[in-house]
Amino acid sequence: MGGSLAMALDGKCHRRIGIARSQETCLTAMAGHVVDHATTNLREGTEGADIVVLATPVRTILSMLGEIGPYLRPGTLVTDLGSTKGDIVDAMNRLPDQILAVGGHPMCGKEKGGLGEADAQMFEGATYVLTPTRHTTESAMSLATDMVHASGARVLILDAQRHDSAAAHVSHMPYLVASALMHSAAGAGARDHVVGALAASGFRDTTRLASSDVPMMLDILLTNRQAVEEALTLMEKSLAGAKLLLGDPDALEEWMRAAQCWRTEIFT
Amino acid sequence: MGGSLAMALDGKCHRRIGIARSQETCLTAMAGHVVDHATTNLREGTEGADIVVLATPVRTILSMLGEIGPYLRPGTLVTDLGSTKGDIVDAMNRLPDQILAVGGHPMCGKEKGGLGEADAQMFEGATYVLTPTRHTTESAMSLATDMVHASGARVLILDAQRHDSAAAHVSHMPYLVASALMHSAAGAGARDHVVGALAASGFRDTTRLASSDVPMMLDILLTNRQAVEEALTLMEKSLAGAKLLLGDPDALEEWMRAAQCWRTEIFT
Repeated sequence: MGGSLAMALDGKCHRRIGIARSQETCLTAMAGHVVDHATTNLREGTEGADIVVLATPVRTILSMLGEIGPYLRPGTLVTDLGSTKGDIVDAMNRLPDQILAVGGHPMCGKEKGGLGEADAQMFEGATYVLTPTRHTTESAMSLATDMVHASGARVLILDAQRHDSAAAHVSHMPYLVASALMHSAAGAGARDHVVGALAASGFRDTTRLASSDVPMMLDILLTNRQAVEEALTLMEKSLAGAKLLLGDPDALEEWMRAAQCWRTEIFT
Repeated sequence: MGGSLAMALDGKCHRRIGIARSQETCLTAMAGHVVDHATTNLREGTEGADIVVLATPVRTILSMLGEIGPYLRPGTLVTDLGSTKGDIVDAMNRLPDQILAVGGHPMCGKEKGGLGEADAQMFEGATYVLTPTRHTTESAMSLATDMVHASGARVLILDAQRHDSAAAHVSHMPYLVASALMHSAAGAGARDHVVGALAASGFRDTTRLASSDVPMMLDILLTNRQAVEEALTLMEKSLAGAKLLLGDPDALEEWMRAAQCWRTEIFT
């Protein structure tokens, strides 16, 4: 995701500096012109930056926010691409006073991460949530907005709690449902191997998110536990409702048509 | 699906005759060379046929199986593309003695039906289940197998009960899960409209099957109720298990990795 953003910002900013854990990733990123320069040194990479974008799993963002403050010059804007915002905004609120900060979450991505999957077009037309913090001045929000627009995405300003609750329903829950479906099918498949042989495109797409990066998703679930539990409870009720309707064809049909209709509303 | 099979069999059989409810569909099918000839008359369309393929929602297949017997000449092979096999095999078993019958279910398809979506390549490499009936002689199975191979698919012979149980887990359950997820999200969205605004590609793919044809899916659920209920119970246990694990990061991570790993096993 960080690589995709860097590519989307090519020619839209003065200089893109990448920071990675391994020298190999730095070399790959520079060779592919994903960034203009790359380093494994956090201090060197952030020194003199106007904007610092933290693009790692959420709990790594949290620890970097605790570490990065002293490296930054006053007026630097810190933002991130983390999928949950509550804990991140709390950590941003604890940054030194002279630092600017806006939380960020682009509502796009692939189930596979890494530089090889980086895609300059990923942000085109996507919704990109910006979340105010104690360090969000008008000019900080304006700079963050400029960056989002330069990437091709649309800004949606949301406070952290509202973002996390909504994301639990349309992002974290689909991941859990996909993984739970894999567990169910694997359980049934252990009793009869033919279960796997019958899995086709419908099963493949419904479970796509179960192939998501585990460290990334684990951090999301652990930093949004309450909202995820609430969304799970709602999902359990939906499934229990469906089970009851199996004995009532007319009501079942109505339930099916409502789901079909809502999906058309959202995706057209 | 019937249109796709007809297209896949172009040049592989003597003559493809389509039967549709409306004259308009017949004209469209002939104009698009989906079939060589089309009619709205069941008797005319099936007269003299070597193979009759019933390609409608399951309950319509059941009523056609009760009606079609007298029209067919001895030795005709009746088969179908229905997604559940128990009731269909029962109805095939009641066909007149001189008729041959093999149940069929190609494990491919799109969430949208209709001639406009017909695709000659749909069967290429797909698993195509054939289900024996009381009327399945060796030559009947051999003719059905020839047709499946001509379409580009692979044959998997399964009895009806085993097919229906496996399909409940990897096909009917994903549909119900997708629809239940739409109901959950719509419920959450009614309280905060931002839920819909955050729905992106992950939600779109996980809920794709909720856009399936309702009459087709309704017949599937109603004719496979017991297996669907069992699969729902297993899915409810998987979700409840996931909810408990939210408080145990190590066990949660292991659960997530298992789901990811099983998916890789099935789809590579």
